Amino acid sequence: MIGRWVIISSERGKRPLDFIHEAEEPTDASCPFCPGNEGMTPPEIFCVREDGTQPDTPGWQTRVVGNKFPALRIDGDLNRRGEGMFDRMNGVGAHEVIIETPDHDARLHQLSLANFRHVVEAYRERISDLTRDPRFRYILVFKNEGGAAGASLDHSHSQLIATPIIPKRVSEELNGARVYYGWKERCVFCDLITQERQDRRRVVCENDSFIAIEPFAPRFPFETWLLPKDHRPFFERDNDLNQLTALLRETLQRLSVTLGDPPYNFLIHNSPVNCRGTDLLAYHWHIEIMPKLTQVAGFEWGTGFYINPTRPEDAAKYLREAVLK
Amino acid sequence: MIGRWVIISSERGKRPLDFIHEAEEPTDASCPFCPGNEGMTPPEIFCVREDGTQPDTPGWQTRVVGNKFPALRIDGDLNRRGEGMFDRMNGVGAHEVIIETPDHDARLHQLSLANFRHVVEAYRERISDLTRDPRFRYILVFKNEGGAAGASLDHSHSQLIATPIIPKRVSEELNGARVYYGWKERCVFCDLITQERQDRRRVVCENDSFIAIEPFAPRFPFETWLLPKDHRPFFERDNDLNQLTALLRETLQRLSVTLGDPPYNFLIHNSPVNCRGTDLLAYHWHIEIMPKLTQVAGFEWGTGFYINPTRPEDAAKYLREAVLK
Repeated sequence: MIGRWVIISSERGKRPLDFIHEAEEPTDASCPFCPGNEGMTPPEIFCVREDGTQPDTPGWQTRVVGNKFPALRIDGDLNRRGEGMFDRMNGVGAHEVIIETPDHDARLHQLSLANFRHVVEAYRERISDLTRDPRFRYILVFKNEGGAAGASLDHSHSQLIATPIIPKRVSEELNGARVYYGWKERCVFCDLITQERQDRRRVVCENDSFIAIEPFAPRFPFETWLLPKDHRPFFERDNDLNQLTALLRETLQRLSVTLGDPPYNFLIHNSPVNCRGTDLLAYHWHIEIMPKLTQVAGFEWGTGFYINPTRPEDAAKYLREAVLK
Repeated sequence: MIGRWVIISSERGKRPLDFIHEAEEPTDASCPFCPGNEGMTPPEIFCVREDGTQPDTPGWQTRVVGNKFPALRIDGDLNRRGEGMFDRMNGVGAHEVIIETPDHDARLHQLSLANFRHVVEAYRERISDLTRDPRFRYILVFKNEGGAAGASLDHSHSQLIATPIIPKRVSEELNGARVYYGWKERCVFCDLITQERQDRRRVVCENDSFIAIEPFAPRFPFETWLLPKDHRPFFERDNDLNQLTALLRETLQRLSVTLGDPPYNFLIHNSPVNCRGTDLLAYHWHIEIMPKLTQVAGFEWGTGFYINPTRPEDAAKYLREAVLK
């Protein structure tokens, strides 16, 4: 009725008490993402590894594998069908894990520029590859850092989900960008960047190609967006990887210093797969970083109406003034 | 661009480190919601209390006060205005706290039917009263139970927020119901109830006037909806308070037994203030209860696309089979 789709992942099927007792934290020896334990994950799909080393053995720096408990499965067709007044389809999709580093204890913002760049390259490679599958409409890369942000394993990793429908929130944003473009014949994100660069109060940091800002109406304290300054619809076609790596790492470091290594989520907002025509003019890829500082409560869930105790101008000032090591 | 409004509550203004150190848990002596501490809250707005006792003194069973740190303020006008490409308005609204019981340790589902009914009466009274303020478009009653669900004080309480705009998620649901009504000339919720009563697999419990179900596409494991069986647009005009009290208490008890007193949120989804015409035929008030069992992570936030590990038919069966004390 409101266009909401839910993935019922019954293969993960949990019984009531499973929710009450949390899984125990694995040690390095039992961590499936640590070198030496490659056999504990599905086979690698993409890997940056030393010359002469074999797949699914140590010697890698960034490694992409299938999710062992995928929310969606790569095989089969959608089989959309009705069930009374409802709609159902099969959970076709891809669900992959990007293991960012072999170091069990390193956080993403602590990686060397070289290692961080391999993570960004892995995102790009996997999106480019999955884009060729005609069943997919959207490919989402996201990261949950810390248990409070939804990470189930401590070893630093990101995830990728490819879905056969465009998710609801993504559609809303795309539609908004299309309406704005139809009205102004300009990209709303390009206009936003121009305005924020003139105003300066919400700018966190920037380099030649990218800018990090606090959005005008942040849902969460210290919500931070990173955007390419030029109009670019596709993350996977962006060639400024060194500039992107540098500014994303700096932004995460500023959040870490200012907030004391907070749990966070980030998401790459990208154009849909196989989008064409004016959508290429209207949409502008970007990353949204959401530190998890406050509990999201019933009010926010029920209304989509957020209460944020921190002005974005104040958050930007704290982040600009953070002293990086 | 996507119609999102955010409340920047700078009077609560938090500095970065305030997010890191959680407030200490108050004891009864320092709990502002305990009898004897009435002076620690703003004056009472509505109260169910023993005859002969004075306002803002002990002797009450359910007490409504203003929120000491309101997200919105009752005074002033909206003053909608532009700021570059953005929009701003003043945070006009009401933010009240319903202190459900004088007992610091009692949870809502443990209250006597008489005490629980006073809570429901307090909701009705406050909604009815605030409906008369022409500035408001929506009045939301919600409850955060447990710190993980966003409750900042342990003493059992609910909240009410009256807003000058209809929140985004509420609009979506209203629009969906209007479209369905325009198409079928029937209320979508009435049709849902008919289908679920025939199917039975997702029914949790019911009495003469109300029914509790697991929705077909639940966002969260054990998400549960409670609806009046007859078509009723307005919570505050519902006169079946005994039936409502009994079924809401039973539903919360079933969740408590099955899941071991989980943190949860519930929200009363009600018709907007001053809604007219076909909206009265299309919308049907109900309560959505969301146990907080899984961490909502970046994927859900970014996409509005939920991964739920529990089939609603399984959840309903567990809840039906719960043995109540």
